[in-house]
Amino acid sequence: MLWSIVGTIAAICTTVGFIPQIIRGIKTKELSDVSPIMLTLLLVGCSLWLIYGIHLKNPIIALANGFTLSFVVAIFLLRAMYKRNNSKK
Amino acid sequence: MLWSIVGTIAAICTTVGFIPQIIRGIKTKELSDVSPIMLTLLLVGCSLWLIYGIHLKNPIIALANGFTLSFVVAIFLLRAMYKRNNSKK
Repeated sequence: MLWSIVGTIAAICTTVGFIPQIIRGIKTKELSDVSPIMLTLLLVGCSLWLIYGIHLKNPIIALANGFTLSFVVAIFLLRAMYKRNNSKK
Repeated sequence: MLWSIVGTIAAICTTVGFIPQIIRGIKTKELSDVSPIMLTLLLVGCSLWLIYGIHLKNPIIALANGFTLSFVVAIFLLRAMYKRNNSKK
């Protein structure tokens, strides 16, 4: 029981952890310091974790990575948008 | 067998994914766009995943999160260092 709580809190932290990055990006309109290679690897990694979680029928792995994936996609799109807008200036 | 490969590739991607961020930071000497709240949550999350992985005696969870934790700590320290240096200028 205690250990499921530890695992759940761990999953929540590493999932919702990407939300402050989205908020910071929207506030500063700048995400160029965030590595696009990191985002690409996280995108591939989370997609595979999601597939793996569905295969294992493990809802924590599947859900946590499904959410993380959507946050990483959001950071990627915001980064591309701000890069385009900032280069126009 | 196929599924262990999927899980292993997933773990490798989400772990080594942070290395390009370290390299980018060292190259540009700038990590201010990276959210410190994200780094804090990843730090707590990976630490708990590491403890959870050790408890489960699952070497993939433990190792992957041990490495990710060290990369996140490195990004955190580099960010703090560059922030201090850049504010001195």
